Amino acid sequence: MTQVKNDLLLRTLRGERTERTPVWMMRQAGRYLPDYLKLKEKYSFFERCQNPDLASEITIQPVEQVGVDAAIIFSDILVVPQAMGMEVQMIENKGPLLPDPIKQFSDLDKLVVPDVHESLGYVFDALKLTKQRLEGRVPLIGFAGAPWTLLCYMVQGKGSKTFDEAKAFCYTQPETAHRLLQQITDTTIAYLQGQAAAGADVVQIFDSWGGLLGPEDFENLSMRYIRQIVAAMKNKALTIIFAKGAWHSLDSMAATGAHGLGIDWCIRPGMARQLAGPQCALQGNFDPAKLLSPIPVIRKEVKSMLDAFSGYPHIANLGHGILPNVPVDHARAFVETVKNYQYEPA
Amino acid sequence: MTQVKNDLLLRTLRGERTERTPVWMMRQAGRYLPDYLKLKEKYSFFERCQNPDLASEITIQPVEQVGVDAAIIFSDILVVPQAMGMEVQMIENKGPLLPDPIKQFSDLDKLVVPDVHESLGYVFDALKLTKQRLEGRVPLIGFAGAPWTLLCYMVQGKGSKTFDEAKAFCYTQPETAHRLLQQITDTTIAYLQGQAAAGADVVQIFDSWGGLLGPEDFENLSMRYIRQIVAAMKNKALTIIFAKGAWHSLDSMAATGAHGLGIDWCIRPGMARQLAGPQCALQGNFDPAKLLSPIPVIRKEVKSMLDAFSGYPHIANLGHGILPNVPVDHARAFVETVKNYQYEPA
Repeated sequence: MTQVKNDLLLRTLRGERTERTPVWMMRQAGRYLPDYLKLKEKYSFFERCQNPDLASEITIQPVEQVGVDAAIIFSDILVVPQAMGMEVQMIENKGPLLPDPIKQFSDLDKLVVPDVHESLGYVFDALKLTKQRLEGRVPLIGFAGAPWTLLCYMVQGKGSKTFDEAKAFCYTQPETAHRLLQQITDTTIAYLQGQAAAGADVVQIFDSWGGLLGPEDFENLSMRYIRQIVAAMKNKALTIIFAKGAWHSLDSMAATGAHGLGIDWCIRPGMARQLAGPQCALQGNFDPAKLLSPIPVIRKEVKSMLDAFSGYPHIANLGHGILPNVPVDHARAFVETVKNYQYEPA
Repeated sequence: MTQVKNDLLLRTLRGERTERTPVWMMRQAGRYLPDYLKLKEKYSFFERCQNPDLASEITIQPVEQVGVDAAIIFSDILVVPQAMGMEVQMIENKGPLLPDPIKQFSDLDKLVVPDVHESLGYVFDALKLTKQRLEGRVPLIGFAGAPWTLLCYMVQGKGSKTFDEAKAFCYTQPETAHRLLQQITDTTIAYLQGQAAAGADVVQIFDSWGGLLGPEDFENLSMRYIRQIVAAMKNKALTIIFAKGAWHSLDSMAATGAHGLGIDWCIRPGMARQLAGPQCALQGNFDPAKLLSPIPVIRKEVKSMLDAFSGYPHIANLGHGILPNVPVDHARAFVETVKNYQYEPA
């Protein structure tokens, strides 16, 4: 295996002190980069995902053009429901549509726990190709959606502010819900282990809708499955959990043994550190909308963020995915400010 | 003035111990009640708001049909931007549309700080009529949107998951943003004072999008204006602040002297109490989607919620507005469980 030259991210996740804070941005591959937008005009979303050459090209763009310290494979969390047998459409400017959602126990018959090497082999191929092309410049991150977040889409059938149909499904048919969550979990474990084998140094679990659940529901419908996934990745890849808005459970997330925890901009770094304990790396938490500010404001705010995280393992990142309308030089200002930062105690 | 017979809400907001916990539900007027849905077929949204007879009928329905301990006037937070001179359309199943949003300093010329007795007199008339028809059965709650939440709509022009255009407006044109926020604040103070004079015993400030801001932005763009409003209501009405998701600033909200603070279901009651201090009433925090559970589950979960809030002033409520698809007997089960609750120490 190629040695990773810039291993700041890996060392930070292992809890080591590093010469500076590593930086990457959620959704950095795709969305706002002009070279990506050109590919988007020519190929559909799933073409871009399923063609290892294209996916790898998109993955490496931000490393070369913005200077981030890690590459994250270009893909989507909904490839898992798709591999389990559901139809998934990506509607331009509207988001995902699953035209035949799960509504009752008998609908589970439509699903399989797939052989991931057959149905998701294209992701592994993209990872292998990317790893090769990166030539050890930076680490490679793989990812999957958390089972709860995938259930949201599989039951609601589309995006939602509240995912109340998905919640009602869990409250009225808890046994069916837990069976579905376990099937997603089993698929995800095989999928992430395959990603690690294909070259992912780190895997991130995205629980984008974890913050819609209260603490007890989050434990019951999300954490107990995330816990299985983190345990299954032990010694296979470093793990990061990002459960947006679920700050109330940072202590349970830390207790899984995950190496990093993502946090959003609505929790102060000091409070997050207090809840998560001193060990694991915290990743975040710049408000993505702040990248729309003038560059001098971005620089100032990034420095304040870094000050607030100083003293403990930190990975600079946004608190959610980068917005599509962010100018590239604003994204670069974010990355460069982190790279040039020196902590000056007051 | 008529003495309020069931004054549980008022005494709880004053910090007094009461024989039982008062209960009402955000958005209880409208949405899910069959008698409301009949009126909705006949009259447009603004007809229902602007006709004091209809607004008052809708306001009283949940008191008579569900048994809540307070009435909240049927209206909408966007009547304020409308009174300030903006066109506001309510698009069925889509939400609000402000076709001519604020984008730059010169757009402020389109706005006025109105004479609220002229432009919002219909709300005061509806309050007076409702107060009369209630005959002191329960207290009457008035409300307004927080300036930040109103700015979101006035700048973005419609609903949004992130309100990134509204945020970018504040980050790139801070002076214009603060001038707009102050104009909204001045209008809101006159409006809420008018509501108190027309019979509102309590006023609630809804900062529905407060949770999109990090702690510093929340202070800068929201709290400093909410603070002015709470101060201006002193000795005029009891005040409740509900800034959904802005749990990180419960301490600043408590410091305004507001009598009650609304919280959502993502913060544990014990943590909220710790942040807010022992004085002010906490209002919430049942997950609205949980009202879609079977009734026995609702009863069990409501009891757990009441246990968790016991020992300090508490107003039972949802953590956000009631969902339109909640069966009426589920809403009733929520209210009745609160009314019949007896705390049994373990």
